[in-house]
Order: sequence, then C-alpha cells, then structure tokens
Amino acid sequence: MAHLPDRVSITEVGLRDGLQIEKRTLCTGEKLALARALIEAGHTSLEVTSFVSPARVPQLADAAEVLAALRHTRGVELKALVPNMRGVERAIAAEADVVTFVLSATDTHGKRNLNRSPDASLAELREIAGKTSAAGVRIDASLSVAFGCPFEGNVPVEKVIHLASEIQQLGIPRITFCDTTGMATPRQVQALAEALRDRLPEIDPAFHFHNTRGLGLVGVLVALQEGIVRFESSVGGLGGCPFAPNAAGNVCTEDMVHMLHEMGIETGLDLTRLLEAARLAERLVGHTLNGQVLKAGPRLGFHRNAG
Amino acid sequence: MAHLPDRVSITEVGLRDGLQIEKRTLCTGEKLALARALIEAGHTSLEVTSFVSPARVPQLADAAEVLAALRHTRGVELKALVPNMRGVERAIAAEADVVTFVLSATDTHGKRNLNRSPDASLAELREIAGKTSAAGVRIDASLSVAFGCPFEGNVPVEKVIHLASEIQQLGIPRITFCDTTGMATPRQVQALAEALRDRLPEIDPAFHFHNTRGLGLVGVLVALQEGIVRFESSVGGLGGCPFAPNAAGNVCTEDMVHMLHEMGIETGLDLTRLLEAARLAERLVGHTLNGQVLKAGPRLGFHRNAG
Repeated sequence: MAHLPDRVSITEVGLRDGLQIEKRTLCTGEKLALARALIEAGHTSLEVTSFVSPARVPQLADAAEVLAALRHTRGVELKALVPNMRGVERAIAAEADVVTFVLSATDTHGKRNLNRSPDASLAELREIAGKTSAAGVRIDASLSVAFGCPFEGNVPVEKVIHLASEIQQLGIPRITFCDTTGMATPRQVQALAEALRDRLPEIDPAFHFHNTRGLGLVGVLVALQEGIVRFESSVGGLGGCPFAPNAAGNVCTEDMVHMLHEMGIETGLDLTRLLEAARLAERLVGHTLNGQVLKAGPRLGFHRNAG
Repeated sequence: MAHLPDRVSITEVGLRDGLQIEKRTLCTGEKLALARALIEAGHTSLEVTSFVSPARVPQLADAAEVLAALRHTRGVELKALVPNMRGVERAIAAEADVVTFVLSATDTHGKRNLNRSPDASLAELREIAGKTSAAGVRIDASLSVAFGCPFEGNVPVEKVIHLASEIQQLGIPRITFCDTTGMATPRQVQALAEALRDRLPEIDPAFHFHNTRGLGLVGVLVALQEGIVRFESSVGGLGGCPFAPNAAGNVCTEDMVHMLHEMGIETGLDLTRLLEAARLAERLVGHTLNGQVLKAGPRLGFHRNAG
C-alpha cells in the first residue's frame, strides 16, 4: 500500500440514490436541512436530486425546488441525475451545475430500469451532449451494473471498457462506474481499474459501490490501491437495494471517510459533522441507517463510551 | 493481488464469541444443533465454548456438556477458550482438543477484562503450558486488542510483537491476533502482518477481525495480501461489542467465505450450508444477524430474487 493517493474526492449521493428508495418522502425543507448539514461537513459535490418521472419516483418530485433553494451555495457543485432528454431539459431549466446521464452496462438491466438498451442510451446521449454543450452545462455519465448485473450476472470488463470509450468519445471524460447491486469483487475492481488506466487514460473515473454483500469498503480499498481517487457514497449508508429489501445500500460516506482518514488520506470532510448529518438523516427517514461508525463512534473516540 | 493464497483455513467462533454476548441463553441442545449445522457446512475447527466463570458468563455454563456431546465428531477440532489455570483444568477434564489461552495486549484492557496484566497472563501461561503439555493437549494463544484498545487507543506493533515473541518462546506457535473492538485499519493490519513475517516467522498467525466500524472484511483482504492464511469468524456475524451495544460484532463467516470464493480462494466450506446455519442461528437467538449475504443472497444467485 505504498502508493496510495494522498487525497480523494467524494460526491455525496444520499439525497438522490438514498432518498429515492425511502418509504417516507421527505418534504423539500427536510431535504434542504440535510443538504446544508452535508455542506457544513465539507461536501463540495452533491448529487442532490434526479429528473426522472415524478410518477415513477415521487420521492424526488421536487427536484427543481431543491436545486433552486441550493443554487447559490458558494463552492458547491450541485449534480442532478437524468435518464433521458426530457430530464436533461428539466435539469437545465432548473440550473443544475452538472447533469449526470445514467446508462446501463447490460441490455436487460437497461431495458428494465431505463426502458432502453445501452446502445439506445448512447444514441440519446449523443443528442443530449449537444444540448448540454449549447446550454453551457457540464455533463457526466454514470454507468449502472458495471461490476455485475442482477439479471445477466457477470459483466465482462471488455463490455464496460467499450461503453466507457464510446461515452468518452462524446466529449464526456467524467464517468462513474456503479456497482448498482453490490456485486463487485476485489479482482473485478482491480481488473476494471487497471483496464481504465491502461486503455482509457483520458477518462477521469469515479467508483460507486454498494455494500449489499458487505464488500463496499473492500471495493474502495482495492480501487485506492489501483489509483482511483474519486468515489460516490451516501450519508449513513442511506438507500437500499430494490432487489433485496433488507440488504444494505450505498457505501456509507462517514464509514468510508473514517477509513480514509485513518489511512492518512485526505477528503476535505469533517467526520464529526458528517456523523451529525447522518443522525439528522436517521431522524428524517425515521429508521436506523446502516452506518457503523454512527453506532460505534470513531475508533479512537471509542474509549469515551467504554466507561 | 497477484500473490494471494490459494486456500485459507477458518475457525468458527460464533458458539463462543457470539453466544457469550447474547441476551438469550441457548440451551445445550440448541447449541449442538448449531454446531452440527456448522460442521455439516464443512467446518473442521470450531471454538465451541469457553471455560470462564459461569457466574460471569452464564451463557456458556454448559461448556463441559457441549464438549462431551461433540467429542467424537470425526475430523473436527474442538477448541475451548480459557482465561486462567482453573479454566484450563476444566477444559482438560472436559477433553477439549485444543485450549486457547486468552491474554490482552494492554494493561488496562487486561486488568478490566481478565483481572491481570499482560505480564501476569504470560507468567500464568508458562505454568499452564506445563499443564497442557503434561496432559497432551494442544494450547493456542489469543491476543486481545492487538490492533487497538478501547481504553489505551493505538497499540504499538512493537508491543504486540514483544508479547507474541514471549508466547512463542513458551512453545506456542499458533497465536490469534484479535481486533476485539474493531479498531484495525488497513495500514495497521499490513504493519502487523509484515512484522510477524519478517521478525517472527516461527509463528503461525491467525487474524480475528470485528466489523464494529465496517472494516472487518477490509482487514481480511489486507491480511490476505500480506500472506495471512488463517482467520477466525462468526456465523451470521453473531456477537456484538460490549462497549457499543448496537454495533456489529465479529466478521461474518459466510460474508467472508463469499468474498474468498469469489476471489478463487478455497475454504473447504459450502456457502449454501453456511447460510442455512446462519438462518438457524438467527432463529435460535431470536433476532436478525448482521450477515449481508444472508439478506441479499450470493452475488450470482441474486437474479433469482430479481424477477
């Protein structure tokens, strides 16, 4: 572990990837309170919402209001997920700083989740990239099921690299590789990171893990060892898995930050304030979250509870 | 990760390290049912009980009965934890295959948990090693808080190496290094594994992690990368942390096995049967356990739930 990075950057996705699966729909004021707590903890990049159909994801129906309220927060990048041209138009109208276009790495997941194949998504992305370019809005891409698909099983690295290359050729260097249902294994993470470094060095990759089978932070560690320096995660581990109702969801931001800081890797985040934000998130959604440091405290703060 | 081991061996500690902290005391028959399910899953090394004071740990008061019932299971090593000479005498009388003497790496934890300092434990271990040698019973050692102490904070590698060296000089090569309260960080795991390899190659180390702060399997991965091939873990993640009531406990056996098998590392265990044993453990203790694969299924079995 001699060559680990000194610093990583984290995009907080709890407000989107977390809240979209919660039973209780937070009101706009509650979302803003959580967003502000996260920004106070040092976050400068947040995926705050998604411009999907409000009929399909009613939890995020207030996407424009959330963006409007946060728009002038200094030094913070507000990202909005979009699945199609309609979403992009809404996101541009709502003045998102960055739109993140999501596409799937497999046909079956793409058709079930986005109602289109990866090829159809790529074709749409070509049009969308013209639209965002004209509007002067940055566009990133997010590739679902990049480490395994709940319908198709293993996803060959070759397939992921092909899609990433196509995306990059549209002038989009920032791509997030998502382990949507927690299927990433150490060797897969290593293989994808290596292939990206060797074959697509123009890409600035982020890795987004889920802890569905307990391997979320294992994925982060392997990715760090392979030189990945951008990650996405969710406060408190907010979120879940639509295919396994009781399983864990996103990698928990404060657990990841705790690990990184203990390894001497900077994040720009304040762990104590992150834990406060996670406690707020627990109160707002009304149930216990999966974060472990939330329950046990930081490792060297532990003796305070030990009486 | 080119040089990972092909195979690791696992000692299942759920019956001891798990059950000792459960509110509900299992009856002997229930423990035996769980032990047999674990053995059917392929386990050949189990820490089945502890000869501590029944007044202090009533959950394990039937230590002798558990050993008597399992004694003739072919090809299975039955281990019993002992904190002192009285425990060793009882374990020998009960015909444990292996007694595991536990000592602490720090003064404060040792005095609070075992009522003696590491030096006093070492002095007692010298006498005990004579006793077990005379009885023809193997003795292993287990070193608590080897990666951090809830009272003293960081524990220097130098201190752990010193104690391990003293233990080894008593003719005890098998030492388990325990992360009793989940304080191990990747760099610490690496540092201890390196120091053991370089300075005490006569020792046959096992690492025992807790998932208190979400880093249990991260510790396992780093240890594997450093050549550690023996681990301890607990079915379903059974167990907890006396200092943080809601925190996770031991690394979950089936989550670790799932990771290892997906990395091509053999364990001799059958994941499907391990999951059955974990479900039995959940029914017996009467609450949900922390195992993640238990909730989500193995990564490539997942699509069966996804219909």
